[in-house]
Amino acid sequence: MTPMAQALIEAGKAAARGEVPVGAVVTDAAGAVLAAFGNEVEARKDATAHAEMLALRAAALRLGGKFLPGCTLTVTLEPCPLCAAAASLFRIERLVFGAYDPKSGGVEHGPRVFEQTTCHHRPDVVGGVAERESAELLTNFFKTRRDPANSAGR
Amino acid sequence: MTPMAQALIEAGKAAARGEVPVGAVVTDAAGAVLAAFGNEVEARKDATAHAEMLALRAAALRLGGKFLPGCTLTVTLEPCPLCAAAASLFRIERLVFGAYDPKSGGVEHGPRVFEQTTCHHRPDVVGGVAERESAELLTNFFKTRRDPANSAGR
Repeated sequence: MTPMAQALIEAGKAAARGEVPVGAVVTDAAGAVLAAFGNEVEARKDATAHAEMLALRAAALRLGGKFLPGCTLTVTLEPCPLCAAAASLFRIERLVFGAYDPKSGGVEHGPRVFEQTTCHHRPDVVGGVAERESAELLTNFFKTRRDPANSAGR
Repeated sequence: MTPMAQALIEAGKAAARGEVPVGAVVTDAAGAVLAAFGNEVEARKDATAHAEMLALRAAALRLGGKFLPGCTLTVTLEPCPLCAAAASLFRIERLVFGAYDPKSGGVEHGPRVFEQTTCHHRPDVVGGVAERESAELLTNFFKTRRDPANSAGR
């Protein structure tokens, strides 16, 4: 299974738990999966418990260091500024993401975290991988919610 | 004691532990301290274990919700993009910070997280409070380190 396929599964599991469906996987230089998480904002009552944050922290814990050199972060949605900044701080080598997020994204939109001179580590970025599947999970999730306020962020 | 005085104490304790000296305090609407942390990047081997992240998460855990309405985050250094984004996600009402950080800051420098249309909650911001004391802690800390690489981020 590709990391994106696994991230999509994590996103689907998040939706089933009532979480905004975003999934993230961290793989090492050899492609081995170090951590895979879905969004857990509701379960943990933590506004920063985004899939990427959980996967990055768990992967670092597993490797036993504070950085993730040579690792790839694969996520179904363009990371927000929080998660983009975290990927940089953990020195992720490569970021692969699915759907673009013009509303809350921090990589290709808004603050464009990696493009700033204050960004001291820039991963290689590939966006739009499995874009349709990633976006559909989100669209279907918000379609079933009647409160439009639910669509603002996670 | 003011929240900034307490944040400075946390920053000093962080320095004594070999951590980059940054301290953060979250207070509720009545001014009661909900959480106070220094930087724990080295201790936790977690590149995102910034004082602000730890204080915000602990405060939310204490209040039992995923947001921190009416709360103030007081921190000795201008938050980086990660921590600025976290403050927004937690819906912090007010951010008070000490020293400005032209090299890695995300509020008044670089991505200026709160000024983006992708930012859905903007706290009131007051910078430069106890600026000299906050900056001196950092300057003294890095003066004792011989490796210039140590001065890049936390």
